[in-house]
Amino acid sequence: MPILCRPAVMVPEHTITMGETLDLARQLHADHPKLDLVLQLIENTGVHKRHLVRPLDQTLRHPGVEVRNLVYEEEARRRVPEVTLAALAAAGDLGAQDIDAIIFVSCTGFLMPSMTAWMINNLGFRNDTRQIPIAQLGCAAGGAAINRAADFCNAYPGTNVLIVACEFCSLLYQPSDSDVGSLLSNGLFGDAVAAAVVRGRGGYGVRLERNGSYLVPDTEHWISYAVKATGFHFRLDKRVPTTMAMLAPALRTLADSHGWDAAALDFYIIHAGGPRILDDLSDILGVDTESFRYSRATLTDYGNIASAVVFDALRRMFEENTLEHGAAGVIAGFGPGITAESCVGTWAVPTGQPSPQPSQSPRIATAESGMS
Amino acid sequence: MPILCRPAVMVPEHTITMGETLDLARQLHADHPKLDLVLQLIENTGVHKRHLVRPLDQTLRHPGVEVRNLVYEEEARRRVPEVTLAALAAAGDLGAQDIDAIIFVSCTGFLMPSMTAWMINNLGFRNDTRQIPIAQLGCAAGGAAINRAADFCNAYPGTNVLIVACEFCSLLYQPSDSDVGSLLSNGLFGDAVAAAVVRGRGGYGVRLERNGSYLVPDTEHWISYAVKATGFHFRLDKRVPTTMAMLAPALRTLADSHGWDAAALDFYIIHAGGPRILDDLSDILGVDTESFRYSRATLTDYGNIASAVVFDALRRMFEENTLEHGAAGVIAGFGPGITAESCVGTWAVPTGQPSPQPSQSPRIATAESGMS
Repeated sequence: MPILCRPAVMVPEHTITMGETLDLARQLHADHPKLDLVLQLIENTGVHKRHLVRPLDQTLRHPGVEVRNLVYEEEARRRVPEVTLAALAAAGDLGAQDIDAIIFVSCTGFLMPSMTAWMINNLGFRNDTRQIPIAQLGCAAGGAAINRAADFCNAYPGTNVLIVACEFCSLLYQPSDSDVGSLLSNGLFGDAVAAAVVRGRGGYGVRLERNGSYLVPDTEHWISYAVKATGFHFRLDKRVPTTMAMLAPALRTLADSHGWDAAALDFYIIHAGGPRILDDLSDILGVDTESFRYSRATLTDYGNIASAVVFDALRRMFEENTLEHGAAGVIAGFGPGITAESCVGTWAVPTGQPSPQPSQSPRIATAESGMS
Repeated sequence: MPILCRPAVMVPEHTITMGETLDLARQLHADHPKLDLVLQLIENTGVHKRHLVRPLDQTLRHPGVEVRNLVYEEEARRRVPEVTLAALAAAGDLGAQDIDAIIFVSCTGFLMPSMTAWMINNLGFRNDTRQIPIAQLGCAAGGAAINRAADFCNAYPGTNVLIVACEFCSLLYQPSDSDVGSLLSNGLFGDAVAAAVVRGRGGYGVRLERNGSYLVPDTEHWISYAVKATGFHFRLDKRVPTTMAMLAPALRTLADSHGWDAAALDFYIIHAGGPRILDDLSDILGVDTESFRYSRATLTDYGNIASAVVFDALRRMFEENTLEHGAAGVIAGFGPGITAESCVGTWAVPTGQPSPQPSQSPRIATAESGMS
């Protein structure tokens, strides 16, 4: 069964703190009728700092879509290689030639050919590597990438899939947008590149046992892009923070179908879209907020880094290194649609130690692989 | 093994003929230093007529990216349902509830959430349907969609995947571009929507036995989008028509790995990017040009309809209905990268008749499923 190995995550060298974000909002939107609300919402995110691919003064200027997309390309080419190599090494010293498919997820720039073509040409991947670029799942693409990678390994046992999540949210800053949702987003999102390998054989990490997707009915307009001459304009409906009441049942159903209780898992890697998502989900599931500490740390340190969140939260779990083999958990990405892309699996110890058996977990009633 | 069922294809009601295209080129680019070359290149395409989602006079005006993308959305919502329902019916009276994943490929508009969310909300698909939108593989996405659908069915036997290829190339018309590649493209591409179901169990059509991807080294700039305030600008290098010398070996390798001879297959469903592609490929492979009649008919009747080409060519093969069960063939999509997404498989007769056995084909030495 496929193993999701230790992710590598890189955040850029430029930063903006919560204090700077609040100062900027006060300065740029002094006359905004809802400034107090905006400031409160930004404070509520709990985001201490975020990272940016370019210095703050450059970030605040919109140079036009053409230049921005070239910056996206340049920064992706600059930053993806290091993270890719680190992920390959973390997967048990795999080389680029061992990778059978690359899933490249990013919703903050648009390249055709995709970055996958550049990676194959420049980073030593085989010319027959499958290219699976996904741009239209937003923050849920992190979960989707893990799920599609697991599917690929299930289709072709023994293959390896590299996932890259490349999100430069700062390149979607739109100075002309001043609705509350946009101003909150300006204080929430950050930049990061993450990569991880899903190994069809060997490796250690999260054994991917079952995955599922769920679309909340008729919420297409809650998170969306307006496509304009100035690029993608992120639209965030004020109902989004309430989404967990609708998504938590989908997580329960997925866990149930695996014979598990979603309220009693050993680890939770949850998309940290905002603080309310984490608070509500722990509330609704009846899980201690401490269980979401990896996701909360990502949000605090980096902000919402879109599809890269789940990989950074997972990285923190690897670093904490307190799980016993066979520990059961869930990984969930949330994004536009509103869509949840989730999977359940068990912690698999490094090779050399005995392989975890699903039956060792008291939470597991049945542990067949498959779809929810 | 997954079966690619009969595709449904819809072309819009507005048209432009070769004569009208040539007249337009003469009229709009009377002073172009290479007008004669452009006219010759357009004539060489052999495209008799193309279909457009909007009347010609509207198509020629660029209303700005924002309006164009809304037109894309409106036209997709108007035209995708009929084709989707037809594809479900053609797959043996499947319903939307029988579909486990939707692969939506389109490189001529950008929506987030993807059309997959709209389809789930409006066309009766289950809320747990996997959404796999792909925007960055261009014309190769048709082949990629078939291959990823097969992979999904291989990972989860018995599941069904709906593919939709929605290409409104006319919405990428850029009046300001007058390089030879752009003017040729203006005379080559057309609009269409195609859909097909890949069934994990049952159905009849092409049994998908093995697939492969190939990236031609260092040809990223040969086919690409320049992303600007005016939208995607298609860039076509004059070396593209020579690509087959580099891609034919990849098709041979795929067939070889399946124990087949790429020169002696019973059917060829080839991306009709342009006439030279078809001529060169038949030449290099040593295959009668008549074998490419489905692709050529698509090119003649509809122009290059991007990722939808392979589905329309396949539809013509279903309609001709001259294959015997077990007949061996290849489906190949080509696009930016330069990437080939290809698969080999056998014609599987309708259920009720005996299932085709790979060993019945003299071309088959080994017929194991798997990757090339």
